Amino acid sequence: MNEFDYIEKYFNPLTNEFAGNLKNDAAIYNQRSSFDLIISTDTLVEGIHFFGNEDPSIIAKKSLRVNLSDMAAMGAKPVFYNLSLSLPKEKAKLFIPKFAKGLEEDQEIFDLKLIGGDLTSSLKHISITITIFGETSNNQSIPRDGAQNGDILYVSGILGLSKIGLENYNSDSKEFCEAKMKYLLPQPRVDLGISLLNIANSMIDVSDGLVQDGMHLAKNSNLSIELNLSKVPIPKINKIDRNIILDSALYGGDDYELLFSCDPSHEAFIKKLSSKMNIKLTKIGKFREFKNEFLKFKNNSSRPKRSFLHF
Amino acid sequence: MNEFDYIEKYFNPLTNEFAGNLKNDAAIYNQRSSFDLIISTDTLVEGIHFFGNEDPSIIAKKSLRVNLSDMAAMGAKPVFYNLSLSLPKEKAKLFIPKFAKGLEEDQEIFDLKLIGGDLTSSLKHISITITIFGETSNNQSIPRDGAQNGDILYVSGILGLSKIGLENYNSDSKEFCEAKMKYLLPQPRVDLGISLLNIANSMIDVSDGLVQDGMHLAKNSNLSIELNLSKVPIPKINKIDRNIILDSALYGGDDYELLFSCDPSHEAFIKKLSSKMNIKLTKIGKFREFKNEFLKFKNNSSRPKRSFLHF
Repeated sequence: MNEFDYIEKYFNPLTNEFAGNLKNDAAIYNQRSSFDLIISTDTLVEGIHFFGNEDPSIIAKKSLRVNLSDMAAMGAKPVFYNLSLSLPKEKAKLFIPKFAKGLEEDQEIFDLKLIGGDLTSSLKHISITITIFGETSNNQSIPRDGAQNGDILYVSGILGLSKIGLENYNSDSKEFCEAKMKYLLPQPRVDLGISLLNIANSMIDVSDGLVQDGMHLAKNSNLSIELNLSKVPIPKINKIDRNIILDSALYGGDDYELLFSCDPSHEAFIKKLSSKMNIKLTKIGKFREFKNEFLKFKNNSSRPKRSFLHF
Repeated sequence: MNEFDYIEKYFNPLTNEFAGNLKNDAAIYNQRSSFDLIISTDTLVEGIHFFGNEDPSIIAKKSLRVNLSDMAAMGAKPVFYNLSLSLPKEKAKLFIPKFAKGLEEDQEIFDLKLIGGDLTSSLKHISITITIFGETSNNQSIPRDGAQNGDILYVSGILGLSKIGLENYNSDSKEFCEAKMKYLLPQPRVDLGISLLNIANSMIDVSDGLVQDGMHLAKNSNLSIELNLSKVPIPKINKIDRNIILDSALYGGDDYELLFSCDPSHEAFIKKLSSKMNIKLTKIGKFREFKNEFLKFKNNSSRPKRSFLHF
């Protein structure tokens, strides 16, 4: 099979009407002026973002989900995506069918379709770039820079699992099962993001650890976050010291939970939302006037303020 | 410098208002319902699409230009693009500033801006994925499947240079200078594409060789192309046999000329357009009813019908 055969057999069935059966040089999207189109790109590279020996359907889902998480962070409803897949020639036959199957399953779950892309060979490593498109009503998406002095800082779910899953990827212990699953297959908070429209005034998905992503929110709003370390929601894992688990939450990546600010008047709404959606939503800090630092630990902990960096 | 510093210093200055200074998880595009948004993605991988030792500004320009060529093929006006760049950590410091400079220069020439993207490390090779966005009035873009029986097949410019440039990349002979430049820095026919709106009824950019891309047009319109080999516009290069140059045109890639069909009644218009834009536009064949083959050579040449394939 050559690339045209692969595209026809495995990717064309994943497309919607904008793709025109992938016959043209580009997709054609009929714009709707009452909506904003929300556009984001995330790349996953073998050896950096994934091992390469995972089931290709898992790699596909992770690629799509990290992008879905960016839509969640904007409060946008995902509608379609564009895919570029590069892989060594000799891997194509086994990889592509399973990869496409993974996309198909997640397209069903998250209700979105493929509109086009590129399929090329590479010399050594697999690389996947997805550009995802979502919609909100005009000017309704949630920015990173809208927090106000006195706002509450919330986070969804539990933090730190993914890093622990990565670090214990080769362990057979049942205790790491949940963590490994979270590392392999994050759960983007798409519905939660949409429910927070008009409630959260700034939001980000926690992909680089709570500290670094919290700093982004504080910096963009020119405020300081006072983070209450004792409130940070972390898992209980008997084999690992609580302090190390907390470090995973603060500096680990790949959690894809939502971190957001809102006015204290929304506290009751958030409580109800949490119970209705069955998603833990925890108050972990407050926004204060900026003085020297974008992030302070409430108990004056001297922990560092930086996470994983690519360069 | 870490990735946030690189983004702030080198990429943020390239953005427009939709990027929101790259502060959010995504770009926000205010849709305009009287226009279609035309969306395409092309990836360039080190060792496959470029050597890796070219000046990074050249790699940047080539990445953007192959995408611009897809807009040209649709008759769309390019408006913005999304960039994903992955490269080994140790290359970042030298590569990124020159790469961004190349983008800046071509943004000026082609009048478009950056709206976002992703910057990550990779283990070994550089990989660049651009998703480009163009606009046409509603339902005006030029498809690949609109050719009619009796239509003329035109091609712009000269074919085969890029392949010859690639094959003689290390030659110092002046005779290969133009070919090497065409390989390194293709000239996307953006203005020509737009001028062909309402004239060309099917169009494609020649990126995989005339034969393969011609076959796409014929197949999508369910017709057969009768290709007149003696008319195919090829360069004169004394060092290379005419037959080998013709092969480069037929099966080589990276020419990025426009191949299109139109009704014979437009012949006079095409002639005028060619002279006005100073771009060679050559009649190289006709569309006929489909019988057995999507592409025939007029003089019954037995040359093959396939070009470069990734898989």
